[in-house]
Amino acid sequence: MRRAIEWDGDAIVIVDQTLLPGTFATQRITNVDELIDAIQRLAVRGAPALGVAGALGVALVAGRDDASELAERLARARPTAVNLRWGVEQALKELPNGPQQVLARAQRLAKADEEINKRASFRAAEYVKAHTTRRKLRLHTHCNTGWLATAGWGTALGVVWHLANENAIEEVLVDETRPLLQGARLTAFELAEAGVPYCILPDSAAATALAEGRSDAVVVGADRIAANGDVANKIGTYPLALAAKHHGVPFLVVAPESTIDAKTLTGKDIAIEERDAAELGDLVPDGAKAFNPAFDVTPADLITAIVTEDRVWEPATRA
Amino acid sequence: MRRAIEWDGDAIVIVDQTLLPGTFATQRITNVDELIDAIQRLAVRGAPALGVAGALGVALVAGRDDASELAERLARARPTAVNLRWGVEQALKELPNGPQQVLARAQRLAKADEEINKRASFRAAEYVKAHTTRRKLRLHTHCNTGWLATAGWGTALGVVWHLANENAIEEVLVDETRPLLQGARLTAFELAEAGVPYCILPDSAAATALAEGRSDAVVVGADRIAANGDVANKIGTYPLALAAKHHGVPFLVVAPESTIDAKTLTGKDIAIEERDAAELGDLVPDGAKAFNPAFDVTPADLITAIVTEDRVWEPATRA
Repeated sequence: MRRAIEWDGDAIVIVDQTLLPGTFATQRITNVDELIDAIQRLAVRGAPALGVAGALGVALVAGRDDASELAERLARARPTAVNLRWGVEQALKELPNGPQQVLARAQRLAKADEEINKRASFRAAEYVKAHTTRRKLRLHTHCNTGWLATAGWGTALGVVWHLANENAIEEVLVDETRPLLQGARLTAFELAEAGVPYCILPDSAAATALAEGRSDAVVVGADRIAANGDVANKIGTYPLALAAKHHGVPFLVVAPESTIDAKTLTGKDIAIEERDAAELGDLVPDGAKAFNPAFDVTPADLITAIVTEDRVWEPATRA
Repeated sequence: MRRAIEWDGDAIVIVDQTLLPGTFATQRITNVDELIDAIQRLAVRGAPALGVAGALGVALVAGRDDASELAERLARARPTAVNLRWGVEQALKELPNGPQQVLARAQRLAKADEEINKRASFRAAEYVKAHTTRRKLRLHTHCNTGWLATAGWGTALGVVWHLANENAIEEVLVDETRPLLQGARLTAFELAEAGVPYCILPDSAAATALAEGRSDAVVVGADRIAANGDVANKIGTYPLALAAKHHGVPFLVVAPESTIDAKTLTGKDIAIEERDAAELGDLVPDGAKAFNPAFDVTPADLITAIVTEDRVWEPATRA
């Protein structure tokens, strides 16, 4: 499995995800401005990958007098995913010990991300098997949470990899994930490369797929998880959770513990990034008003389980 | 207000809606094959407009020996909207009386459609005002239900025209309506032409808009209404209704009585048209599987009111 972000000796190398699936190209990033630009135009994206980007970004500036200031700018590049700031802060702890220690910490963090994702998604796969009855499963997912969204393997899509390795996947239902189509572009790309059967659907058809019994379980990632279990994730996650609840289909969030932000008490406290109307495409007339939030908040009571590398948390069972 | 479909003396003239909003062009249709093609590629669309197309289509063939056979082919051009077959059957009643009577009936039906829509949407506007508290309203809609979707005025969007005439619209929230973007392309076009403020959002952001209190009421049209009040409408209507119910926002269906199909007992009995994967766009790899239903079914218990030219039907209050 390839890597969406890694260190090549003196620069960060990312897969430019804005060009997929048509073109597979990498970009070398040598300074924080380039990194912030890559993050903001979503060339690198996905909460765990952003955590690694934050840490490696600090490695780019460690040793400079303005390292802390640049790191703070980097941490603010996108507001919703907590992992970006978390990664920056992890690397900053080594700043007094010199650039080599910062880089080593960032690289350990990247390596750990893959291990963490494998553990979390393995636990989630076991949970799914324990809570469903079919031998071959139809998993439903939203956005992209595979190796492209992480330092390796993936979170929610990691569940698919584990089950596919056991020949226990019948099909993956992939919400196209408007406006930027991370499902149709990136998740479909990963599944096709891996030879896993998949079916793309408009986000607006997800409720019908659930109503018709086409999905055995829903697996999604998370950009930030509040202390009460409310989950911020890609726009469209909330209506998917509403429909899954309505139709009694298990709804799992798979994410590293670092996505849980104890300082954020509930979903209401999560800042949701609003992005430009232009993302909706050429059809939106110039100057037309648009509502284009990048994320939504799924309340804890709609979530069957939040699965991390350490635990299965069933926030709805407290209600 | 312009007309999406009319008779010009010896042919049907439609606005080709596949070209909007970039190009406003009409197409003259002189035979049933052209009409079926226009219907199937959605150059003419919208349940009431399809009813008129069905009736005018019979006028094109009245007097021919194979008129009944061609009419049956026309009635089958799209399976979900009951109005198409209804319009065909209305015109066929005049077949024994000769082509002039068929045409006269079809033209009366087109004229009546506009009057019916004005009455239904006026009643719905009064209902909305009676069930909301703001002086200026934020109406939320899906797909396109204005003059482009009917013989004139519109159904759900007709509610907006009535309220806008009273200066009682603050904003119309327009779901973009994937995959063919009838909201972003057609509804936005109608609202911009009429000078009514609007805001476009991805379908997947509708639940968040409702959660944030941005919508005072949801108004949609219908392609077929079952005897129990279940409503087939453009894909994405069902998740919108789920979210509206969850957030206590009134959810209105505005449609002519001809959309109610007494022979269809429940939503389970409605044939849902599945369309080609290619509609999802270039990004879907060739041969990739897609789930692309054109419509979904909203159960009666999620619907606050179905408003027609004759009545306000509150199917959920029976439960």
